[in-house]
Amino acid sequence: MKALILKKHFRLIIDKELIVLKDSSVTLSELKGRVKKFVGDRNWEQYHSPKNLAMSISIEAAELMEEFQWIDIHESRNIKDTGDFDNIKEEIADIMIYCLSFSNSLDIDVADAIIKKIEKNEKRFPKP
Amino acid sequence: MKALILKKHFRLIIDKELIVLKDSSVTLSELKGRVKKFVGDRNWEQYHSPKNLAMSISIEAAELMEEFQWIDIHESRNIKDTGDFDNIKEEIADIMIYCLSFSNSLDIDVADAIIKKIEKNEKRFPKP
Amino acid sequence: MKALILKKHFRLIIDKELIVLKDSSVTLSELKGRVKKFVGDRNWEQYHSPKNLAMSISIEAAELMEEFQWIDIHESRNIKDTGDFDNIKEEIADIMIYCLSFSNSLDIDVADAIIKKIEKNEKRFPKP
Amino acid sequence: MKALILKKHFRLIIDKELIVLKDSSVTLSELKGRVKKFVGDRNWEQYHSPKNLAMSISIEAAELMEEFQWIDIHESRNIKDTGDFDNIKEEIADIMIYCLSFSNSLDIDVADAIIKKIEKNEKRFPKP
Repeated sequence: MKALILKKHFRLIIDKELIVLKDSSVTLSELKGRVKKFVGDRNWEQYHSPKNLAMSISIEAAELMEEFQWIDIHESRNIKDTGDFDNIKEEIADIMIYCLSFSNSLDIDVADAIIKKIEKNEKRFPKP
Repeated sequence: MKALILKKHFRLIIDKELIVLKDSSVTLSELKGRVKKFVGDRNWEQYHSPKNLAMSISIEAAELMEEFQWIDIHESRNIKDTGDFDNIKEEIADIMIYCLSFSNSLDIDVADAIIKKIEKNEKRFPKP
Repeated sequence: MKALILKKHFRLIIDKELIVLKDSSVTLSELKGRVKKFVGDRNWEQYHSPKNLAMSISIEAAELMEEFQWIDIHESRNIKDTGDFDNIKEEIADIMIYCLSFSNSLDIDVADAIIKKIEKNEKRFPKP
Repeated sequence: MKALILKKHFRLIIDKELIVLKDSSVTLSELKGRVKKFVGDRNWEQYHSPKNLAMSISIEAAELMEEFQWIDIHESRNIKDTGDFDNIKEEIADIMIYCLSFSNSLDIDVADAIIKKIEKNEKRFPKP
């Protein structure tokens, strides 16, 4: 039976339906490829310079912040119930899409960069 | 021969060495897990509220922008040769690490959110 | 004649009309007072904490950036003719309004802070 | 006696010394003039394009946020006692210096823009 061989972190059985988390099955290469194709199909590489994309990441980051502008820290943890959670998911997606396009524009292996930075942080902030 | 069966986008043969791009082999779940463990090991969940993390994404986005603050768009495309490329990779990693921690804090399947947003954008901006 | 005694930088005679620049006649205290009254009249001091206001400055700064996101540096100098200049004036005003509210919240003499910072910069970057 | 005729908000008598708040005596024109001279003396107008200055405002706004990144809203109100208040004053000054340079670059009467925006906000959010 196919489900038997699935790694347990990767898939969840909910209401007898097999739900596959995209986070568990999609690589950053695939996402970068999707973004690259979207940009290329529209001939937008001319706009997607590293400078403009760095601005774009920052603009989208501000739009995410806007959801949390006037609430306190405690309330922010409950935003799923009280806020516009669909919009929040779109805003975090927008930031990451521009991060992926930025990585495309400079040919950065971003998973590698993330892992190296976590390892550096682990050394900088040793476990208590 | 093992190399023969590798998908061509995913691996590169450079100087007879097999280089595996992390972007092709690492999922967002694995990266989110690494970030979650880093935060948990230091008992930092108390600081990593969605509000604080949204601020943190924006702060790191500004640090990336700083690398492009005074140069023009053309120069930004050549930043690998002229700028501090190691620092740029660290800055994009910092942004994405906070994006992953934000996704952890609100249990967001971020790959799913990214794909859905790209599909929405594809409809909003039809191919020319 | 009254116009004779006006300091020349402060007032301009345009088409025989006397135009008084607000920048020449209004102090930061007056602007801070206007902002304080606006916030107080709505009982918004509870939201206008330094943390929230720092976020707000950053959010408005991103909205200003949005006007320049995809254009090049040369085009940005001509934005008065090509862009939405009324909106740009509103965005820079929004940033400064939050800066003034931030200064109110922590009782900062912001003109003094600005002058001191310029003097520090003058020492740090000597004239060529 | 001269001190008697001073407006009370504008001047404070501290230890028998007459302290004049800069906010009460300095106009935005004077501050803009100081910034313009600083930039011109260093031949930096070439860098101070509206696009680069919009980025710069955002970068400095993020540096101010950094002071409030991990603290809660209540703590942020007490930052004068617990934080690096001198640095906070420098960061708010940096933001405003770039706002003034931005206004110089596009010839904006920023006090006028602020007053008009407050009046617009007063209509949009009527007093309760």
